[in-house]
Amino acid sequence: MKKYKGYLIDLDGTMYRGEEKIEEASDFVKALQEKGIPYLFVTNNSTRRPEQVADKLMSMDIPATPEQVFTTSQAAANFIAERKADASVYMIGEEGLEAALQEKGFTMNDVDPDFVITGLDREITYEKLAKACLAVRKGATFLSTNADIALPTERGLMPGNGSLTSVVAVSTTVQPTFIGKPEPIIIEQALKIIGTSKEETLMVGDYYDTDILAGLRAGLDTLMVHTGVTTPEKLREYGEQPTYAIHSLTEWMDKI
Amino acid sequence: MKKYKGYLIDLDGTMYRGEEKIEEASDFVKALQEKGIPYLFVTNNSTRRPEQVADKLMSMDIPATPEQVFTTSQAAANFIAERKADASVYMIGEEGLEAALQEKGFTMNDVDPDFVITGLDREITYEKLAKACLAVRKGATFLSTNADIALPTERGLMPGNGSLTSVVAVSTTVQPTFIGKPEPIIIEQALKIIGTSKEETLMVGDYYDTDILAGLRAGLDTLMVHTGVTTPEKLREYGEQPTYAIHSLTEWMDKI
Repeated sequence: MKKYKGYLIDLDGTMYRGEEKIEEASDFVKALQEKGIPYLFVTNNSTRRPEQVADKLMSMDIPATPEQVFTTSQAAANFIAERKADASVYMIGEEGLEAALQEKGFTMNDVDPDFVITGLDREITYEKLAKACLAVRKGATFLSTNADIALPTERGLMPGNGSLTSVVAVSTTVQPTFIGKPEPIIIEQALKIIGTSKEETLMVGDYYDTDILAGLRAGLDTLMVHTGVTTPEKLREYGEQPTYAIHSLTEWMDKI
Repeated sequence: MKKYKGYLIDLDGTMYRGEEKIEEASDFVKALQEKGIPYLFVTNNSTRRPEQVADKLMSMDIPATPEQVFTTSQAAANFIAERKADASVYMIGEEGLEAALQEKGFTMNDVDPDFVITGLDREITYEKLAKACLAVRKGATFLSTNADIALPTERGLMPGNGSLTSVVAVSTTVQPTFIGKPEPIIIEQALKIIGTSKEETLMVGDYYDTDILAGLRAGLDTLMVHTGVTTPEKLREYGEQPTYAIHSLTEWMDKI
Protein backbone atom coordinates (compact mmCIF):
# COMPACT_ATOMS: atom_id res chain seq x y z
CA MET A 1 0.00 0.00 0.00
CA LYS A 2 1.33 3.41 -1.06
CA LYS A 3 2.23 5.78 1.79
CA TYR A 4 1.25 9.39 1.11
CA LYS A 5 3.54 12.28 2.00
CA GLY A 6 0.81 14.91 2.12
CA TYR A 7 -2.94 15.03 2.85
CA LEU A 8 -5.55 17.49 1.60
CA ILE A 9 -8.55 17.12 3.88
CA ASP A 10 -12.13 18.27 3.48
CA LEU A 11 -13.97 19.65 6.51
CA ASP A 12 -17.77 19.31 6.66
CA GLY A 13 -18.76 15.65 6.44
CA THR A 14 -15.13 14.55 6.90
CA MET A 15 -13.88 16.28 10.08
CA TYR A 16 -17.31 17.17 11.49
CA ARG A 17 -20.97 17.37 10.53
CA GLY A 18 -22.06 20.96 11.09
CA GLU A 19 -21.54 21.46 14.82
CA GLU A 20 -21.31 17.72 15.54
CA LYS A 21 -17.93 16.01 15.98
CA ILE A 22 -16.89 13.02 13.88
CA GLU A 23 -15.12 11.15 16.68
CA GLU A 24 -12.39 9.42 14.66
CA ALA A 25 -11.30 12.67 12.92
CA SER A 26 -9.23 13.78 15.90
CA ASP A 27 -7.16 10.57 16.05
CA PHE A 28 -6.72 10.62 12.27
CA VAL A 29 -5.26 14.12 12.22
CA LYS A 30 -3.20 13.52 15.36
CA ALA A 31 -1.62 10.49 13.65
CA LEU A 32 -0.64 12.66 10.67
CA GLN A 33 0.81 15.24 13.03
CA GLU A 34 2.77 12.66 15.05
CA LYS A 35 4.31 11.17 11.92
CA GLY A 36 5.24 14.61 10.62
CA ILE A 37 3.08 14.26 7.51
CA PRO A 38 1.95 17.67 6.25
CA TYR A 39 -1.80 18.22 5.91
CA LEU A 40 -3.98 21.06 4.74
CA PHE A 41 -7.70 21.51 5.27
CA VAL A 42 -9.28 22.54 1.97
CA THR A 43 -12.75 24.05 2.21
CA ASN A 44 -15.39 25.50 -0.10
CA ASN A 45 -16.66 27.57 2.80
CA SER A 46 -15.85 31.14 1.77
CA THR A 47 -17.50 32.83 4.73
CA ARG A 48 -14.97 32.27 7.53
CA ARG A 49 -11.34 33.30 8.02
CA PRO A 50 -8.69 30.55 8.46
CA GLU A 51 -8.30 31.54 12.13
CA GLN A 52 -12.00 30.88 12.72
CA VAL A 53 -11.84 27.51 10.98
CA ALA A 54 -8.75 26.49 12.96
CA ASP A 55 -10.46 27.53 16.20
CA LYS A 56 -13.43 25.32 15.39
CA LEU A 57 -11.17 22.35 14.62
CA MET A 58 -9.15 22.89 17.80
CA SER A 59 -12.38 23.01 19.81
CA MET A 60 -13.05 19.50 18.46
CA ASP A 61 -9.55 18.35 19.52
CA ILE A 62 -8.33 18.32 15.91
CA PRO A 63 -4.82 19.83 15.63
CA ALA A 64 -5.02 22.80 13.25
CA THR A 65 -3.27 26.14 12.78
CA PRO A 66 -4.65 28.92 10.56
CA GLU A 67 -1.80 28.11 8.13
CA GLN A 68 -3.18 24.59 7.79
CA VAL A 69 -6.52 25.91 6.53
CA PHE A 70 -7.01 26.85 2.90
CA THR A 71 -10.35 28.35 1.94
CA THR A 72 -11.87 28.97 -1.45
CA SER A 73 -11.76 32.68 -0.59
CA GLN A 74 -7.98 32.50 -0.28
CA ALA A 75 -7.77 30.50 -3.51
CA ALA A 76 -9.90 33.14 -5.25
CA ALA A 77 -7.68 35.95 -3.95
CA ASN A 78 -4.59 34.07 -5.18
CA PHE A 79 -6.25 33.49 -8.56
CA ILE A 80 -6.86 37.24 -8.95
CA ALA A 81 -3.37 38.21 -7.69
CA GLU A 82 -1.72 35.89 -10.23
CA ARG A 83 -3.55 37.71 -13.02
CA LYS A 84 -3.34 41.28 -11.75
CA ALA A 85 -1.49 42.14 -8.55
CA ASP A 86 -3.11 45.58 -8.24
CA ALA A 87 -6.59 44.47 -9.33
CA SER A 88 -9.77 46.30 -8.43
CA VAL A 89 -12.48 43.99 -7.17
CA TYR A 90 -16.19 44.04 -6.45
CA MET A 91 -17.23 41.29 -4.08
CA ILE A 92 -20.44 39.77 -2.81
CA GLY A 93 -19.58 37.71 0.23
CA GLU A 94 -19.00 37.51 3.94
CA GLU A 95 -16.09 38.03 6.34
CA GLY A 96 -13.89 35.22 4.99
CA LEU A 97 -13.88 36.50 1.42
CA GLU A 98 -13.49 40.12 2.49
CA ALA A 99 -10.45 39.24 4.64
CA ALA A 100 -8.81 37.18 1.87
CA LEU A 101 -9.19 40.03 -0.63
CA GLN A 102 -7.97 42.65 1.86
CA GLU A 103 -4.88 40.57 2.58
CA LYS A 104 -3.88 40.92 -1.08
CA GLY A 105 -4.36 44.68 -0.96
CA PHE A 106 -6.84 44.83 -3.82
CA THR A 107 -8.78 48.04 -4.38
CA MET A 108 -12.50 47.69 -3.78
CA ASN A 109 -14.57 49.13 -6.64
CA ASP A 110 -18.32 48.71 -7.03
CA VAL A 111 -18.68 50.50 -10.37
CA ASP A 112 -16.10 49.30 -12.89
CA PRO A 113 -13.85 46.72 -11.21
CA ASP A 114 -11.43 44.36 -13.00
CA PHE A 115 -13.01 41.39 -11.21
CA VAL A 116 -16.41 40.55 -9.77
CA ILE A 117 -16.37 37.71 -7.27
CA THR A 118 -19.40 36.15 -5.65
CA GLY A 119 -19.27 34.11 -2.47
CA LEU A 120 -22.00 33.02 -0.10
CA ASP A 121 -23.60 36.13 1.38
CA ARG A 122 -26.50 35.67 3.75
CA GLU A 123 -26.97 39.44 3.74
CA ILE A 124 -27.55 39.43 -0.02
CA THR A 125 -29.55 42.35 -1.44
CA TYR A 126 -30.89 43.30 -4.86
CA GLU A 127 -28.49 46.23 -4.92
CA LYS A 128 -25.47 43.97 -4.38
CA LEU A 129 -26.65 41.69 -7.19
CA ALA A 130 -27.38 44.69 -9.43
CA LYS A 131 -23.87 46.08 -8.97
CA ALA A 132 -22.38 42.69 -9.82
CA CYS A 133 -24.54 42.41 -12.97
CA LEU A 134 -23.72 45.94 -14.14
CA ALA A 135 -19.97 45.39 -13.58
CA VAL A 136 -19.95 42.05 -15.41
CA ARG A 137 -21.85 43.65 -18.31
CA LYS A 138 -19.14 46.35 -18.38
CA GLY A 139 -16.54 43.63 -18.84
CA ALA A 140 -15.31 42.67 -15.36
CA THR A 141 -13.95 39.11 -15.13
CA PHE A 142 -16.56 37.08 -13.29
CA LEU A 143 -15.45 34.64 -10.58
CA SER A 144 -17.34 32.63 -7.99
CA THR A 145 -15.83 31.01 -4.91
CA ASN A 146 -17.79 27.78 -5.42
CA ALA A 147 -20.74 26.21 -7.18
CA ASP A 148 -22.34 24.43 -4.20
CA ILE A 149 -26.08 24.61 -4.79
CA ALA A 150 -27.15 23.88 -1.22
CA LEU A 151 -25.90 24.36 2.31
CA PRO A 152 -26.86 21.71 4.87
CA THR A 153 -28.19 23.25 8.10
CA GLU A 154 -30.42 22.13 10.93
CA ARG A 155 -33.33 23.84 9.07
CA GLY A 156 -32.66 21.82 5.91
CA LEU A 157 -30.83 22.59 2.66
CA MET A 158 -30.42 26.35 2.36
CA PRO A 159 -29.39 28.18 -0.85
CA GLY A 160 -25.69 27.66 -1.56
CA ASN A 161 -23.34 30.00 -3.32
CA GLY A 162 -23.83 28.30 -6.68
CA SER A 163 -27.49 29.29 -6.59
CA LEU A 164 -26.77 32.90 -5.60
CA THR A 165 -24.10 33.12 -8.29
CA SER A 166 -26.70 32.04 -10.84
CA VAL A 167 -28.50 35.40 -10.50
CA VAL A 168 -25.52 37.14 -12.10
CA ALA A 169 -24.82 34.31 -14.54
CA VAL A 170 -28.43 34.11 -15.75
CA SER A 171 -28.97 37.86 -15.91
CA THR A 172 -25.74 38.66 -17.79
CA THR A 173 -25.47 35.34 -19.70
CA VAL A 174 -21.80 35.30 -18.62
CA GLN A 175 -20.61 32.14 -16.88
CA PRO A 176 -18.19 32.63 -13.98
CA THR A 177 -14.93 30.82 -13.36
CA PHE A 178 -15.55 28.75 -10.25
CA ILE A 179 -12.59 28.45 -7.89
CA GLY A 180 -13.63 25.87 -5.30
CA LYS A 181 -13.97 22.10 -5.46
CA PRO A 182 -14.66 20.27 -7.81
CA GLU A 183 -12.58 22.70 -9.87
CA PRO A 184 -8.90 21.78 -9.89
CA ILE A 185 -7.89 25.44 -9.28
CA ILE A 186 -8.16 25.21 -5.50
CA ILE A 187 -6.37 21.83 -5.40
CA GLU A 188 -3.47 23.04 -7.54
CA GLN A 189 -3.01 26.00 -5.21
CA ALA A 190 -3.29 23.76 -2.16
CA LEU A 191 -0.45 21.57 -3.48
CA LYS A 192 1.80 24.61 -3.74
CA ILE A 193 1.06 25.44 -0.11
CA ILE A 194 1.49 21.94 1.29
CA GLY A 195 4.61 21.47 -0.84
CA THR A 196 4.10 17.85 -1.88
CA SER A 197 3.67 16.65 -5.46
CA LYS A 198 0.32 15.48 -6.78
CA GLU A 199 1.64 11.91 -7.03
CA GLU A 200 2.41 11.73 -3.31
CA THR A 201 -0.64 13.63 -2.00
CA LEU A 202 -4.02 12.17 -1.06
CA MET A 203 -7.30 14.07 -1.27
CA VAL A 204 -9.68 13.03 1.53
CA GLY A 205 -13.38 13.86 1.51
CA ASP A 206 -16.97 12.70 1.94
CA TYR A 207 -18.65 14.22 -1.12
CA TYR A 208 -18.00 12.76 -4.56
CA ASP A 209 -19.26 15.78 -6.53
CA THR A 210 -16.84 18.20 -4.88
CA ASP A 211 -13.98 16.50 -2.97
CA ILE A 212 -13.41 13.38 -5.01
CA LEU A 213 -14.06 15.02 -8.36
CA ALA A 214 -11.64 17.83 -7.50
CA GLY A 215 -8.97 15.26 -6.65
CA LEU A 216 -9.61 13.28 -9.81
CA ARG A 217 -9.48 16.40 -11.99
CA ALA A 218 -6.25 17.60 -10.39
CA GLY A 219 -4.67 14.16 -10.83
CA LEU A 220 -4.46 13.16 -7.15
CA ASP A 221 -5.26 9.85 -5.53
CA THR A 222 -8.50 10.14 -3.57
CA LEU A 223 -9.86 8.70 -0.35
CA MET A 224 -13.63 8.74 0.01
CA VAL A 225 -14.95 8.44 3.54
CA HIS A 226 -18.64 7.70 3.91
CA THR A 227 -19.31 9.91 6.93
CA GLY A 228 -21.02 12.70 5.01
CA VAL A 229 -22.93 13.18 1.76
CA THR A 230 -22.04 10.34 -0.62
CA THR A 231 -23.27 6.91 0.48
CA PRO A 232 -21.67 3.64 -0.73
CA GLU A 233 -24.81 2.97 -2.80
CA LYS A 234 -24.63 6.40 -4.44
CA LEU A 235 -20.90 6.02 -5.10
CA ARG A 236 -21.54 2.94 -7.27
CA GLU A 237 -23.51 5.13 -9.70
CA TYR A 238 -20.42 7.14 -10.62
CA GLY A 239 -18.14 6.13 -13.47
CA GLU A 240 -14.71 7.11 -12.27
CA GLN A 241 -14.20 5.77 -8.73
CA PRO A 242 -12.04 7.18 -5.94
CA THR A 243 -8.73 5.39 -5.33
CA TYR A 244 -10.03 4.20 -1.95
CA ALA A 245 -13.41 4.23 -0.20
CA ILE A 246 -13.88 3.59 3.54
CA HIS A 247 -16.71 3.86 6.05
CA SER A 248 -14.70 5.70 8.69
CA LEU A 249 -11.27 7.27 9.02
CA THR A 250 -10.51 4.61 11.66
CA GLU A 251 -10.01 2.17 8.79
CA TRP A 252 -7.20 4.33 7.44
CA MET A 253 -5.11 4.62 10.63
CA ASP A 254 -2.67 1.83 9.70
CA LYS A 255 -2.17 3.30 6.20
CA ILE A 256 -0.71 6.56 7.50
CA MET B 1 -56.08 42.94 -45.00
CA LYS B 2 -57.67 41.13 -42.09
CA LYS B 3 -59.38 43.34 -39.50
CA TYR B 4 -58.84 42.18 -35.91
CA LYS B 5 -61.64 42.22 -33.34
CA GLY B 6 -59.37 42.32 -30.29
CA TYR B 7 -55.88 43.56 -29.42
CA LEU B 8 -53.46 42.30 -26.77
CA ILE B 9 -50.87 45.03 -26.28
CA ASP B 10 -47.48 44.98 -24.60
CA LEU B 11 -46.43 47.97 -22.50
CA ASP B 12 -42.71 48.74 -22.15
CA GLY B 13 -41.17 49.33 -25.59
CA THR B 14 -44.61 49.41 -27.20
CA MET B 15 -46.65 52.03 -25.29
CA TYR B 16 -43.69 53.78 -23.60
CA ARG B 17 -40.00 53.33 -22.93
CA GLY B 18 -39.52 53.42 -19.15
CA GLU B 19 -40.75 56.88 -18.22
CA GLU B 20 -40.58 58.19 -21.79
CA LYS B 21 -43.71 58.43 -23.98
CA ILE B 22 -43.91 56.74 -27.36
CA GLU B 23 -45.86 59.52 -29.09
CA GLU B 24 -47.92 57.44 -31.53
CA ALA B 25 -49.15 55.03 -28.82
CA SER B 26 -51.84 57.43 -27.66
CA ASP B 27 -53.42 57.82 -31.13
CA PHE B 28 -53.21 54.08 -31.70
CA VAL B 29 -55.12 53.19 -28.54
CA LYS B 30 -57.59 56.06 -29.03
CA ALA B 31 -58.39 54.68 -32.50
CA LEU B 32 -59.15 51.26 -30.99
CA GLN B 33 -61.33 52.89 -28.37
CA GLU B 34 -63.21 55.02 -30.92
CA LYS B 35 -63.95 51.98 -33.11
CA GLY B 36 -65.12 49.99 -30.10
CA ILE B 37 -62.44 47.34 -30.53
CA PRO B 38 -61.59 45.67 -27.20
CA TYR B 39 -57.98 45.83 -26.09
CA LEU B 40 -56.07 44.52 -23.11
CA PHE B 41 -52.59 45.52 -21.96
CA VAL B 42 -50.63 42.36 -21.15
CA THR B 43 -47.51 42.84 -19.05
CA ASN B 44 -44.75 40.74 -17.52
CA ASN B 45 -44.31 43.40 -14.85
CA SER B 46 -45.44 41.65 -11.66
CA THR B 47 -44.62 44.49 -9.28
CA ARG B 48 -47.48 46.91 -9.88
CA ARG B 49 -51.24 46.69 -9.43
CA PRO B 50 -53.48 47.20 -12.50
CA GLU B 51 -54.66 50.54 -11.07
CA GLN B 52 -51.07 51.78 -10.98
CA VAL B 53 -50.43 50.64 -14.54
CA ALA B 54 -53.63 52.29 -15.79
CA ASP B 55 -52.68 55.53 -14.02
CA LYS B 56 -49.33 55.56 -15.76
CA LEU B 57 -50.97 54.98 -19.16
CA MET B 58 -53.57 57.70 -18.52
CA SER B 59 -50.78 60.11 -17.56
CA MET B 60 -49.40 59.50 -21.04
CA ASP B 61 -52.80 60.21 -22.64
CA ILE B 62 -53.39 56.51 -23.39
CA PRO B 63 -56.97 55.48 -22.56
CA ALA B 64 -56.80 52.68 -19.98
CA THR B 65 -58.88 51.38 -17.10
CA PRO B 66 -57.57 48.92 -14.47
CA GLU B 67 -59.80 46.29 -16.11
CA GLN B 68 -57.88 46.77 -19.36
CA VAL B 69 -54.60 45.81 -17.68
CA PHE B 70 -53.62 42.18 -17.21
CA THR B 71 -50.43 41.47 -15.30
CA THR B 72 -48.45 38.29 -14.94
CA SER B 73 -49.24 38.48 -11.22
CA GLN B 74 -52.95 38.25 -12.01
CA ALA B 75 -52.30 35.42 -14.45
CA ALA B 76 -50.31 33.58 -11.77
CA ALA B 77 -53.12 34.03 -9.23
CA ASN B 78 -55.64 32.70 -11.77
CA PHE B 79 -53.35 29.76 -12.54
CA ILE B 80 -53.25 28.82 -8.85
CA ALA B 81 -57.00 29.35 -8.33
CA GLU B 82 -57.82 27.04 -11.26
CA ARG B 83 -55.81 24.29 -9.56
CA LYS B 84 -56.78 24.86 -5.93
CA ALA B 85 -59.26 27.56 -4.95
CA ASP B 86 -58.24 27.50 -1.28
CA ALA B 87 -54.52 27.14 -1.90
CA SER B 88 -51.83 28.17 0.56
CA VAL B 89 -49.08 30.20 -1.04
CA TYR B 90 -45.61 31.46 -0.23
CA MET B 91 -44.59 34.39 -2.38
CA ILE B 92 -41.47 36.36 -3.11
CA GLY B 93 -42.52 39.56 -4.82
CA GLU B 94 -43.70 43.12 -4.58
CA GLU B 95 -47.02 44.93 -4.24
CA GLY B 96 -48.50 43.77 -7.54
CA LEU B 97 -48.09 40.08 -6.82
CA GLU B 98 -49.19 40.43 -3.23
CA ALA B 99 -52.40 42.23 -4.29
CA ALA B 100 -53.19 39.65 -6.98
CA LEU B 101 -52.83 36.77 -4.51
CA GLN B 102 -54.84 38.56 -1.81
CA GLU B 103 -57.66 39.16 -4.28
CA LYS B 104 -58.05 35.39 -4.65
CA GLY B 105 -58.16 34.93 -0.88
CA PHE B 106 -55.27 32.48 -0.72
CA THR B 107 -53.76 31.67 2.67
CA MET B 108 -50.19 32.87 3.06
CA ASN B 109 -47.90 30.15 4.42
CA ASP B 110 -44.11 30.40 4.59
CA VAL B 111 -43.45 26.89 5.90
CA ASP B 112 -45.34 24.26 3.93
CA PRO B 113 -47.44 26.00 1.26
CA ASP B 114 -49.13 24.32 -1.71
CA PHE B 115 -47.48 26.80 -4.07
CA VAL B 116 -44.30 28.85 -4.09
CA ILE B 117 -44.35 31.78 -6.49
CA THR B 118 -41.44 34.07 -7.24
CA GLY B 119 -41.83 37.50 -8.79
CA LEU B 120 -39.41 40.40 -9.03
CA ASP B 121 -38.58 41.55 -5.51
CA ARG B 122 -36.11 44.36 -5.10
CA GLU B 123 -36.20 43.77 -1.34
CA ILE B 124 -34.98 40.20 -1.79
CA THR B 125 -33.21 38.60 1.19
CA TYR B 126 -31.45 35.32 1.85
CA GLU B 127 -34.21 34.41 4.28
CA LYS B 128 -36.92 34.86 1.61
CA LEU B 129 -34.94 32.69 -0.81
CA ALA B 130 -34.27 30.11 1.90
CA LYS B 131 -37.98 29.80 2.72
CA ALA B 132 -38.79 29.33 -0.97
CA CYS B 133 -36.11 26.65 -1.33
CA LEU B 134 -37.21 24.77 1.79
CA ALA B 135 -40.87 24.84 0.69
CA VAL B 136 -40.08 23.64 -2.84
CA ARG B 137 -37.97 20.83 -1.37
CA LYS B 138 -40.98 19.89 0.78
CA GLY B 139 -43.04 19.52 -2.38
CA ALA B 140 -44.70 22.90 -3.04
CA THR B 141 -45.54 23.53 -6.69
CA PHE B 142 -43.01 26.05 -7.94
CA LEU B 143 -44.22 28.95 -10.11
CA SER B 144 -42.53 32.09 -11.37
CA THR B 145 -44.29 35.15 -12.76
CA ASN B 146 -41.82 35.51 -15.65
CA ALA B 147 -38.40 34.51 -16.93
CA ASP B 148 -37.10 37.95 -17.93
CA ILE B 149 -33.39 37.89 -17.19
CA ALA B 150 -32.87 41.66 -17.20
CA LEU B 151 -34.77 44.83 -16.43
CA PRO B 152 -33.89 47.92 -18.48
CA THR B 153 -33.38 50.98 -16.27
CA GLU B 154 -31.52 54.27 -16.56
CA ARG B 155 -28.64 52.60 -14.67
CA GLY B 156 -28.43 49.76 -17.18
CA LEU B 157 -29.75 46.21 -17.25
CA MET B 158 -30.66 45.21 -13.70
CA PRO B 159 -31.38 41.62 -12.57
CA GLY B 160 -34.78 40.46 -13.82
CA ASN B 161 -37.10 37.98 -12.19
CA GLY B 162 -35.80 35.09 -14.27
CA SER B 163 -32.40 35.55 -12.66
CA LEU B 164 -33.80 35.77 -9.12
CA THR B 165 -35.98 32.72 -9.76
CA SER B 166 -32.83 30.81 -10.73
CA VAL B 167 -31.64 30.82 -7.10
CA VAL B 168 -34.52 28.54 -6.15
CA ALA B 169 -34.35 26.53 -9.39
CA VAL B 170 -30.59 25.93 -9.13
CA SER B 171 -30.61 25.21 -5.40
CA THR B 172 -33.54 22.77 -5.47
CA THR B 173 -32.98 21.44 -9.03
CA VAL B 174 -36.75 21.96 -9.54
CA GLN B 175 -37.73 24.01 -12.59
CA PRO B 176 -40.66 26.40 -12.11
CA THR B 177 -43.67 26.83 -14.34
CA PHE B 178 -43.29 30.31 -15.81
CA ILE B 179 -46.55 32.21 -16.26
CA GLY B 180 -45.61 35.35 -18.23
CA LYS B 181 -44.71 35.90 -21.87
CA PRO B 182 -43.34 34.03 -23.85
CA GLU B 183 -45.36 31.29 -22.15
CA PRO B 184 -48.81 30.88 -23.69
CA ILE B 185 -50.42 30.69 -20.21
CA ILE B 186 -50.81 34.45 -19.83
CA ILE B 187 -52.07 34.86 -23.41
CA GLU B 188 -54.68 32.14 -23.05
CA GLN B 189 -55.99 33.83 -19.91
CA ALA B 190 -55.92 37.23 -21.60
CA LEU B 191 -58.12 35.89 -24.41
CA LYS B 192 -60.73 34.78 -21.88
CA ILE B 193 -60.76 38.29 -20.40
CA ILE B 194 -60.93 40.18 -23.68
CA GLY B 195 -63.51 37.73 -24.99
CA THR B 196 -62.32 37.40 -28.58
CA SER B 197 -61.09 34.19 -30.19
CA LYS B 198 -57.43 33.62 -30.95
CA GLU B 199 -58.14 33.79 -34.69
CA GLU B 200 -59.52 37.34 -34.46
CA THR B 201 -57.06 38.72 -31.90
CA LEU B 202 -53.74 40.42 -32.61
CA MET B 203 -50.76 40.36 -30.22
CA VAL B 204 -48.79 43.63 -30.42
CA GLY B 205 -45.29 44.02 -28.97
CA ASP B 206 -41.70 45.17 -29.42
CA TYR B 207 -39.76 42.19 -28.10
CA TYR B 208 -39.57 39.00 -30.12
CA ASP B 209 -38.44 36.74 -27.27
CA THR B 210 -41.43 37.57 -25.08
CA ASP B 211 -44.30 39.29 -26.94
CA ILE B 212 -44.05 37.75 -30.39
CA LEU B 213 -43.07 34.30 -29.16
CA ALA B 214 -45.98 34.30 -26.71
CA GLY B 215 -48.37 35.18 -29.54
CA LEU B 216 -46.91 32.52 -31.84
CA ARG B 217 -47.10 29.86 -29.14
CA ALA B 218 -50.69 30.71 -28.29
CA GLY B 219 -51.66 30.64 -31.98
CA LEU B 220 -52.37 34.37 -32.46
CA ASP B 221 -51.41 36.65 -35.31
CA THR B 222 -48.63 38.98 -34.18
CA LEU B 223 -47.67 42.57 -34.88
CA MET B 224 -44.05 43.47 -34.13
CA VAL B 225 -43.35 47.17 -33.69
CA HIS B 226 -39.70 48.20 -33.73
CA THR B 227 -39.90 50.86 -31.01
CA GLY B 228 -38.30 48.77 -28.29
CA VAL B 229 -35.95 45.81 -27.95
CA THR B 230 -35.98 43.86 -31.21
CA THR B 231 -34.49 45.70 -34.19
CA PRO B 232 -35.37 44.85 -37.84
CA GLU B 233 -31.85 43.41 -38.24
CA LYS B 234 -32.23 41.22 -35.15
CA LEU B 235 -35.69 40.08 -36.29
CA ARG B 236 -34.23 38.60 -39.49
CA GLU B 237 -32.21 36.14 -37.38
CA TYR B 238 -35.35 34.43 -36.09
CA GLY B 239 -36.92 31.48 -37.88
CA GLU B 240 -40.64 31.98 -37.33
CA GLN B 241 -41.53 35.57 -38.23
CA PRO B 242 -44.34 37.73 -36.82
CA THR B 243 -47.41 38.13 -39.03
CA TYR B 244 -46.58 41.83 -39.46
CA ALA B 245 -43.60 44.03 -38.60
CA ILE B 246 -43.69 47.86 -38.61
CA HIS B 247 -41.41 50.66 -37.50
CA SER B 248 -44.08 52.61 -35.66
CA LEU B 249 -47.72 52.16 -34.67
CA THR B 250 -48.53 55.07 -36.99
CA GLU B 251 -48.17 52.62 -39.88
CA TRP B 252 -50.98 50.52 -38.45
CA MET B 253 -53.62 53.26 -38.07
CA ASP B 254 -55.42 52.47 -41.33
CA LYS B 255 -55.52 48.74 -40.51
CA ILE B 256 -57.64 49.23 -37.38
